[in-house]
Amino acid sequence: MKVIIIGTGNIGTAAQKAVLAAPDMELAGVYHHYEIDNAQCTMHNVDVALICLPTRESPAFAEKMLRMGISTVDSFDIHTQIPEVRQHLMAVAQEAQSVSIISAGWDPGSDSMIRALLQVLAPEGQTYTNFGPGRSMGHTVAAKAIKGVKNALSITLPLGKGKHGRHVYVELEDGYDFDNVRQRLLQDDYFAHDATEVEQVDDVEKYQTTGHGVLLERTGVASGRDNQQLEFKMKIDNPSLTAQFMVGCARAAYRLQKEGRYGCYTTIELAPAWMLPGSVEANVRALV
Amino acid sequence: MKVIIIGTGNIGTAAQKAVLAAPDMELAGVYHHYEIDNAQCTMHNVDVALICLPTRESPAFAEKMLRMGISTVDSFDIHTQIPEVRQHLMAVAQEAQSVSIISAGWDPGSDSMIRALLQVLAPEGQTYTNFGPGRSMGHTVAAKAIKGVKNALSITLPLGKGKHGRHVYVELEDGYDFDNVRQRLLQDDYFAHDATEVEQVDDVEKYQTTGHGVLLERTGVASGRDNQQLEFKMKIDNPSLTAQFMVGCARAAYRLQKEGRYGCYTTIELAPAWMLPGSVEANVRALV
Repeated sequence: MKVIIIGTGNIGTAAQKAVLAAPDMELAGVYHHYEIDNAQCTMHNVDVALICLPTRESPAFAEKMLRMGISTVDSFDIHTQIPEVRQHLMAVAQEAQSVSIISAGWDPGSDSMIRALLQVLAPEGQTYTNFGPGRSMGHTVAAKAIKGVKNALSITLPLGKGKHGRHVYVELEDGYDFDNVRQRLLQDDYFAHDATEVEQVDDVEKYQTTGHGVLLERTGVASGRDNQQLEFKMKIDNPSLTAQFMVGCARAAYRLQKEGRYGCYTTIELAPAWMLPGSVEANVRALV
Repeated sequence: MKVIIIGTGNIGTAAQKAVLAAPDMELAGVYHHYEIDNAQCTMHNVDVALICLPTRESPAFAEKMLRMGISTVDSFDIHTQIPEVRQHLMAVAQEAQSVSIISAGWDPGSDSMIRALLQVLAPEGQTYTNFGPGRSMGHTVAAKAIKGVKNALSITLPLGKGKHGRHVYVELEDGYDFDNVRQRLLQDDYFAHDATEVEQVDDVEKYQTTGHGVLLERTGVASGRDNQQLEFKMKIDNPSLTAQFMVGCARAAYRLQKEGRYGCYTTIELAPAWMLPGSVEANVRALV
């Protein structure tokens, strides 16, 4: 399986390691996003492209690759837009006879598979997704956009039952007043609805972390019996886990394309065995 | 979707509740295993049969239904024999144009899907499966077979890292010596390798429980980074969860048969979305 990586940020860099360690993959190229148009002639034998670009740029690059007949995996993470991206890339992939797997990070991604499975196991009930502690990219970008903020970092804190707090480290531009900046940050729509603590620091970089975590909890009813207690928990390195799961999904994309099952899939539409190297028989023996 | 249930024990009884509660299923019949041969004429519109029989009887009854063109779901749980049962029923189902889903309880079953997913997320590492506390059927049967034992119950205790202890309640036949029975039990191959505590009680039934649990733990490497910590935990009612998961797998069997993808599948070969009622689009919106 020949795999290329588009993007050289945290996830792209981690994906290189994951592809190189995969027993069934060849790393056929690593590209910056701006190199794609000129490098198309080098890609005629490529099976799967891992799209490791900022989320908003992902669908357009996926479309470009799909139209070349190259299957794609991305970690598009704007939950509310996933259905429309899926629908759009479905038509593109079916026409171009390729396979797109979207939103294949850990949330959305592997967590989505777990949420679906928890729902199968206990059809009535509540699932809570508790993130953190770990860096939120969206909130970090929002904090950096506040006037007077030179650098910022927003850590998501799990408060339980799907509620989250924010711990925001800010480094000020010269001449700005902390209380003033803090007030503006707390009124920002990203922070106004959560318990938010703002801390002024000299150097935000000292507090950077790629560590993250999640706790998925479901209490529900199975076969008429209540109080079934299910949970899934991870403490992980964020870009490493994202990239590794994308590599697993690359196997699923490759398999689906070979079987002629073209289209766009989210992770809940994939079987775990499709994501593993080795024969299905060997994996049944080892894992079932 | 017309579903029948074969078996009226703990799991068959729970399955009735699960099928009746399913928005997309009709309970088309409940049969004792001895009724099957005479009742075949009543089954011509049936889509899926849930085989809720003792594990050793499951494959033969699955085969019988598959040959009638009825897809099946069972919870066959002898891990070492799963590959050969899969291979045998694969040929049967492909010939009869039906679909068999085997080993679709919680372990093997939903746990198998989780183990596969943990392996995808962190390809190098260790997964430990810790069962209990809860009743082990196999060990209970082994304890009951010891001479002098009138009734018994073996509870599996999780000791961590995949090691298990046994707490065995025994009720003696008149005229037998407890120490003697205890020694024979401890030498039995089922108990000789685990830390086993044997307790004499007046009435074993006072200690019966259908509660069970499992903790799946994996620590491993993702994208070259070690110390990714993953875990899945359940505290559940054993027959209720088994039956509910079988009902989810009935949807997958129905779907695969409609798509002409005949054969025998274990749960790691199934996508979670196939197990849910409602459209894929609605489930993508709600769960991804």
